[in-house]
Amino acid sequence: MAKAKKQPRPKAITPKGFRDYFGEEVTQRTHMLATIAEVYHHYGFEALESSAVETVEALGKFLPDVDRPNEGVFAWQEAEDDGKGDWMALRYDLTAPLARVYAQHRNDLPSPYRRYAMGPVWRNEKPGPGRFRQFYQCDADTVGTASMAADAEICMMLSDTLEKVGIPRGDYLVRVNNRKVLNGVLEAMGLPEDDPKRDDVLRTIDKFDKVGESGVRELLGKGRLDASGAYIDGVGLEDHQAEPVLAFLTSKGDTVTETMTNLRAAVGDSKVGQEGIAELELMGSLFAAAGYGDERILIDPSIVRGLGYYTGPVFEAELTFEIFDEKGRKRQFGSVAGGGRYDGLVKRFTGQEVPAVGLSIGVDRLLAALREKGRLAATPTGPVVVTVMDRDRMADYQAMVAELRQAGIRAEVYLGNPKNFGNQLKYADKRHSPIAVIEGGDEKDRGVVQIKDLILGAKIAESATLEEWKERPSQFEVPRTELVAKVREILVSQSSDREG
Amino acid sequence: MAKAKKQPRPKAITPKGFRDYFGEEVTQRTHMLATIAEVYHHYGFEALESSAVETVEALGKFLPDVDRPNEGVFAWQEAEDDGKGDWMALRYDLTAPLARVYAQHRNDLPSPYRRYAMGPVWRNEKPGPGRFRQFYQCDADTVGTASMAADAEICMMLSDTLEKVGIPRGDYLVRVNNRKVLNGVLEAMGLPEDDPKRDDVLRTIDKFDKVGESGVRELLGKGRLDASGAYIDGVGLEDHQAEPVLAFLTSKGDTVTETMTNLRAAVGDSKVGQEGIAELELMGSLFAAAGYGDERILIDPSIVRGLGYYTGPVFEAELTFEIFDEKGRKRQFGSVAGGGRYDGLVKRFTGQEVPAVGLSIGVDRLLAALREKGRLAATPTGPVVVTVMDRDRMADYQAMVAELRQAGIRAEVYLGNPKNFGNQLKYADKRHSPIAVIEGGDEKDRGVVQIKDLILGAKIAESATLEEWKERPSQFEVPRTELVAKVREILVSQSSDREG
Repeated sequence: MAKAKKQPRPKAITPKGFRDYFGEEVTQRTHMLATIAEVYHHYGFEALESSAVETVEALGKFLPDVDRPNEGVFAWQEAEDDGKGDWMALRYDLTAPLARVYAQHRNDLPSPYRRYAMGPVWRNEKPGPGRFRQFYQCDADTVGTASMAADAEICMMLSDTLEKVGIPRGDYLVRVNNRKVLNGVLEAMGLPEDDPKRDDVLRTIDKFDKVGESGVRELLGKGRLDASGAYIDGVGLEDHQAEPVLAFLTSKGDTVTETMTNLRAAVGDSKVGQEGIAELELMGSLFAAAGYGDERILIDPSIVRGLGYYTGPVFEAELTFEIFDEKGRKRQFGSVAGGGRYDGLVKRFTGQEVPAVGLSIGVDRLLAALREKGRLAATPTGPVVVTVMDRDRMADYQAMVAELRQAGIRAEVYLGNPKNFGNQLKYADKRHSPIAVIEGGDEKDRGVVQIKDLILGAKIAESATLEEWKERPSQFEVPRTELVAKVREILVSQSSDREG
Repeated sequence: MAKAKKQPRPKAITPKGFRDYFGEEVTQRTHMLATIAEVYHHYGFEALESSAVETVEALGKFLPDVDRPNEGVFAWQEAEDDGKGDWMALRYDLTAPLARVYAQHRNDLPSPYRRYAMGPVWRNEKPGPGRFRQFYQCDADTVGTASMAADAEICMMLSDTLEKVGIPRGDYLVRVNNRKVLNGVLEAMGLPEDDPKRDDVLRTIDKFDKVGESGVRELLGKGRLDASGAYIDGVGLEDHQAEPVLAFLTSKGDTVTETMTNLRAAVGDSKVGQEGIAELELMGSLFAAAGYGDERILIDPSIVRGLGYYTGPVFEAELTFEIFDEKGRKRQFGSVAGGGRYDGLVKRFTGQEVPAVGLSIGVDRLLAALREKGRLAATPTGPVVVTVMDRDRMADYQAMVAELRQAGIRAEVYLGNPKNFGNQLKYADKRHSPIAVIEGGDEKDRGVVQIKDLILGAKIAESATLEEWKERPSQFEVPRTELVAKVREILVSQSSDREG
């Protein structure tokens, strides 16, 4: 075997748009996923973990602007002995795999099938600041029922979940709308189902926040000059056709009843529109009966949600408190979860209509929100560090950490080069250790250990004027037999200092 | 917009070699990962979650027989505006990403850096029965120390972890060897470090179990006729060169001391061999001092481990109990975890030698072992199902499940078509529900509910002769206000029936 040629060193970097998560970032997310899973499970949802890899064929093309299999998703063609094989891809969400799983296993699954799934999904998009190509989703879906009780249940479960992970009532709002109402409006405008102008109208509706009522009226008609002076072509509808859209956009009343009356006017005779309104009313009555008032779940016609596959109710959870963005401006935190009813996904595989409704929580955004609000307390979780004064007595130091762990205390022995003791304390500092334990030859002979309170030590060092702390010693000599008791005593005093 | 052409229906199947995990399969694994993480964390290890995708360059070629970037791993070339971009790939283990992370972030990480990681890895290999292309790994590594105390710590932690997840002492064994000893043997044979015959010798050593002492002697020399009558070419060594190998293969004595003496003879004057023996002795003394006897951790020269990158201690955890294989034959369950010291992985990136030692647990195999031994009790975790007798009173039924959940009881309302009540009970059966709740119009009027003990009901149906059960009613009428209390009472009695 010839020696391999010297290769240039590989670069130690993640691919563009990917990142690593360290320590508490990981454990906080794990903890949140466990909390969410508990709520979902309690509601009767079953766990499902499908593989990260699907055939491109099964995934389908539900991402916007996807013409080629390797756009929008990360895809590759399997190499096979006799040439090229199937295209495979990383899942871009958890709903498309669910549709495949349900179609594949439908004879073995209960119907309706409530399932939850959590895990990373991948998007082959241009990465940007805070926008990554791998992120977590956390979904719950009910497949196989057209009952609005399923949609209502998921909205209420979303509300419960947000409160359970630490968003107090009043800091979030679940807004609910129905795609059929929107379709009713389009119908009332005289646009048939396959009219290409429907997409233009939907895009215009999305601009309502920016351009207001008169702007929408112009954009639906001949067009309008925008703020930059550019002329934006209109959809080219006649004036009277714009009325249903404007009635719809301004339908939100002070009460649900008032909103419904306005919506009814907007959809006119449209059967699908009336159906949508009836569904909204039914959901509203289930929310009311279960005591979920509109401070938690609100019927709100302004919610559209981008994905084309929704066919009925759609909903979105927003955090309503304000945060400061990168530029120091106040803004609302915004959406952290959403979902809706989609009746076509399973049909792709089986030819049979299978009604389904689902919810997806953006776990990373939700974590960011809790961090922002200081609700993920940075508790010192560093281990007690047992330092090494005499490298030949490693067994003694390992006995100490074993004793501490037996007592339920996180502990480790220093494993670096022990020659420079200062480095050991620097290491303990980097590890956010609450306590360092020291046993040199002298201590060993006298049967004692030194226990350093590193939190108190740091406080004393920082605030030379605070007499309160100066009087408290930060290092204690105790008999070796009292190691665990003393460490525990210091940990308790540190935790009451934090709370006090 | 033209209507899309009718496409043939996609196949609802996972790609070859991938599978889905349902319900308890998922929650049992989640629970096991949490238990393992707790042990690792207690030992001072920090969580790390790197991305699933790495550059092919960073992953390196540590898989066997990998000449092209898309063999062994799932890889693809990034599409970029100006042509083709970098090759990216799914990680095939958690060690190669750790080396990349450590090289990238080494200035911010504590040194030594103890980290744990858990998650799926992917192998582009031919799938086989029980062999999947996506599976979980669960690793702990200590990077940045050459101290044998790090290796010993990880072996002891592995022992603790196995016991914590439910493998009792005596049902597992952590075997420890050292690659330097093996290298010492090769040196004693007069084969220099880059001699291609070294690989042939290693392959021959691996056959010792099958061909025995005389077989190894023949294979190292001129060759041998195998059982099928085929002639296997030998390595072509002279007779005296085989002696160190044979001394090594038969070195295991009744005590560690005896084994060490035999190994010392096998490596002769080889410096690296003597170093390896000294390392094994040092680890052995740490195990003994910490009370890990050879019923838990055993120095065993027969452990080799395939991966080329190990440079010092290697270890493997085996489950020692017997199971029945697919063909009904008894065999030992075998290896569930392994690891060792690797000093070259970070150097690839930085040029500097960074000593490291790590452990990888095959979580799926460990789960299979626990299942095999009946240690993952199939507790009935199905929800209480509230049936729907009157579809207009969905709000009433939702109030019931809400009350049950408030009381900590998993509960759901039936969301399918309620017309056929038999289907509702079949659904409850498929969900492994312990209890069904029934409230028709008559019950509603009288302020009562019917509560069906489905576990007892099934037992009565199965064993028509068991008087003990026949006497117990399986359906109860209670006031609506006592719903929660009665459900809880039945759940308690079911659970004591299970235990009793």
